[in-house]
Amino acid sequence: MTEMEKMGEKAKIAARTLATAGAKKNEALEAIAAALQANAAKIIAANATDLENGKNNGLSAALLDRLMLNESRIDGIAQGVREVEALPDPIGTVISGSTRPNGLKITKVRVPLGVIGIIFESRPNVTADAAVLCLKSGNAVILRGGKEAINSNICIAEIMRDAVESVGLDRNCIQLVQDTSRASSVELMNLTGYLDVLIPRGGKGLIRAVVDNAKVPVIETGAGNCHTYVDESADIEMAANIIYNAKTSRPSVCNAIETILVHSAVAEKALPAIKARLDEKNVELRGCERTREILGDCVVPAVESDWETEYGDYILAVRVVDSFDEAVAHIAKYSSGHSECIVTSDYKSARRFTEEVDAAAVYVNASTRFTDGGMFGNGAEIGISTQKLHARGPMGLCELTSMKFVIEGDGQVR
Amino acid sequence: MTEMEKMGEKAKIAARTLATAGAKKNEALEAIAAALQANAAKIIAANATDLENGKNNGLSAALLDRLMLNESRIDGIAQGVREVEALPDPIGTVISGSTRPNGLKITKVRVPLGVIGIIFESRPNVTADAAVLCLKSGNAVILRGGKEAINSNICIAEIMRDAVESVGLDRNCIQLVQDTSRASSVELMNLTGYLDVLIPRGGKGLIRAVVDNAKVPVIETGAGNCHTYVDESADIEMAANIIYNAKTSRPSVCNAIETILVHSAVAEKALPAIKARLDEKNVELRGCERTREILGDCVVPAVESDWETEYGDYILAVRVVDSFDEAVAHIAKYSSGHSECIVTSDYKSARRFTEEVDAAAVYVNASTRFTDGGMFGNGAEIGISTQKLHARGPMGLCELTSMKFVIEGDGQVR
Repeated sequence: MTEMEKMGEKAKIAARTLATAGAKKNEALEAIAAALQANAAKIIAANATDLENGKNNGLSAALLDRLMLNESRIDGIAQGVREVEALPDPIGTVISGSTRPNGLKITKVRVPLGVIGIIFESRPNVTADAAVLCLKSGNAVILRGGKEAINSNICIAEIMRDAVESVGLDRNCIQLVQDTSRASSVELMNLTGYLDVLIPRGGKGLIRAVVDNAKVPVIETGAGNCHTYVDESADIEMAANIIYNAKTSRPSVCNAIETILVHSAVAEKALPAIKARLDEKNVELRGCERTREILGDCVVPAVESDWETEYGDYILAVRVVDSFDEAVAHIAKYSSGHSECIVTSDYKSARRFTEEVDAAAVYVNASTRFTDGGMFGNGAEIGISTQKLHARGPMGLCELTSMKFVIEGDGQVR
Repeated sequence: MTEMEKMGEKAKIAARTLATAGAKKNEALEAIAAALQANAAKIIAANATDLENGKNNGLSAALLDRLMLNESRIDGIAQGVREVEALPDPIGTVISGSTRPNGLKITKVRVPLGVIGIIFESRPNVTADAAVLCLKSGNAVILRGGKEAINSNICIAEIMRDAVESVGLDRNCIQLVQDTSRASSVELMNLTGYLDVLIPRGGKGLIRAVVDNAKVPVIETGAGNCHTYVDESADIEMAANIIYNAKTSRPSVCNAIETILVHSAVAEKALPAIKARLDEKNVELRGCERTREILGDCVVPAVESDWETEYGDYILAVRVVDSFDEAVAHIAKYSSGHSECIVTSDYKSARRFTEEVDAAAVYVNASTRFTDGGMFGNGAEIGISTQKLHARGPMGLCELTSMKFVIEGDGQVR
């Protein structure tokens, strides 16, 4: 048995006890929140080692900032844990049920998935965020973070494991892979028989590697090539406002937009209005030929790859289209299936867009930035699924569960 | 672009039209049912070629029987199509929704998965069964059947494609891979970007190959190492009756039991009663040492592999356990997570069993043979999922769907 299989075995054992742990889970979450705050100095010291190593390895200032933990960030993490604590426990919910003509009573009940693997990149707060969502939903978790944050992660994981144990639960409800080599990541992807699902959280490269190599079930997250289509009938001011918000409020996140499509009938009026708003944040525009005819040479000529790119930056691709159908076809071709928006005042266009566009979240007249578990009213999320199997869109506690049929009889045979 | 990618592309295009096809789908199903019956002679002729090839290649009588189609079996297939036609359409169902404090109206709506791949083995009726379940749930399907049935499959698929086209839908809603080499199977497993899910239907070897090799999301089906535990408090006659039914009513199917666990406090009374029933069908028993002490040398000594084996035959493994916990631990170790049963008259044992045993279907005092979409009241099924992601247990129309969030606003930004 390899070390990874041993972790898998321990996780399975822990998962069995956690499945019926009930209110103990919230006790554990409270203990975790308190312990993270009480041990802030220890975490900051471990984090300092990571920061030092990061500097020596030439990490950018932005990455170092993502990596950095201070008292206020640790308070933020603890606050996040308490928010999860306050959410309703999904486990044991009766989803549906019936009594069959033969008297069998069949009940569909929500149960944990079992063992969840999470592979993530630099930010050490994910260690706590992911662990507590898994724990609250009754799942044991095996975390495999990036090497940049390994000292912070080990410290946070051990604090959480102690806290879990302090309330009488199995400390192996939470485990961290300490080997951050590529090999350990591949081993986790191939841990069939132990992992019920593996969720990668990070950049495109990581997600691609997991999808290509994993033998365990995977949920793809995070790719966000999102569009806003300005329909012929759009309120131009609303369109400019929505586009400004969806592009510039936080360009690095997956629910930000990357391309806008503007109907040719309103392009001459809409494009300058949109550009005026985006100029406030110096957004670089990359446009099709017709966009450049209207807005001039300040617009960089767009090439094919612009329609495919998730910039994650103050850059926006712009294309003029001649019809609703052309807009929908562009979205069907290039969308990553995350969040898509139409700005329109036409009932039929709104109805067709919501029916025909295939994405986790389809918007009429609102910013795509709302695609977020909290904004949807479902609490914290472990990621945003861009696949259609099991979970789509923001994945909260319910999306970390499975179900089982309980069948009660009095001797029925078939 | 490879041939398989071209099929994927065609399927994606077809899936887009099918997603909003509404009542057209039932028209297509009716056309398919009628066309299969009208073309029975043609199907039987194609099937004759497969049977001839099968004989020449030394297929067993049992396999030849599974492969064989006659008028009555084709009527049965058409009947199955009409049963699916009669089921409610899951697409467009509003699953849940809310209006957020900022006025955004968020609705969670059921939508098709998109493109489904099915890899299956010999029986040609699966070609029709799987295609119509996918079609009814709004999904384009790429079917890849076994080489033994290729002539039957091509014939059935073309009849269905013509029927689909005859009502004005895209004939590529249904496609069949005509190349039955191993390479085509691997290509289908790797058709990322086109397939939303791949469902293998067949023996353990096929399912293992798909799980190990697929890059697209997979739903595992069919492995059924199922148990019945006879509790200390069990009604012995009921136990014998349930075990007899669960083992012998159809031993080859996945919801048949393979092992029974009998509490030592009732073993001396229960085992002879159970054996007496099983003797009616000459079931071979493979027992632990204590079973053999009670029942004698007619019981074959069980070895480790007996606890792991899905016999699919008139063979049953028997083990005496000293406690409820020992029974549950045995199940946790060897169960494939399909269907598990306790026979008991004790409230607490029943409650604990349904909570602690982790399987798609957990029974109290009823035969595991009920794990079946039809028996659960959900209509035809495409398979029985033994994984916990997306679908668990019998997979009917709903399990072939995904969802999307539709968000309607009037200019909201974040």
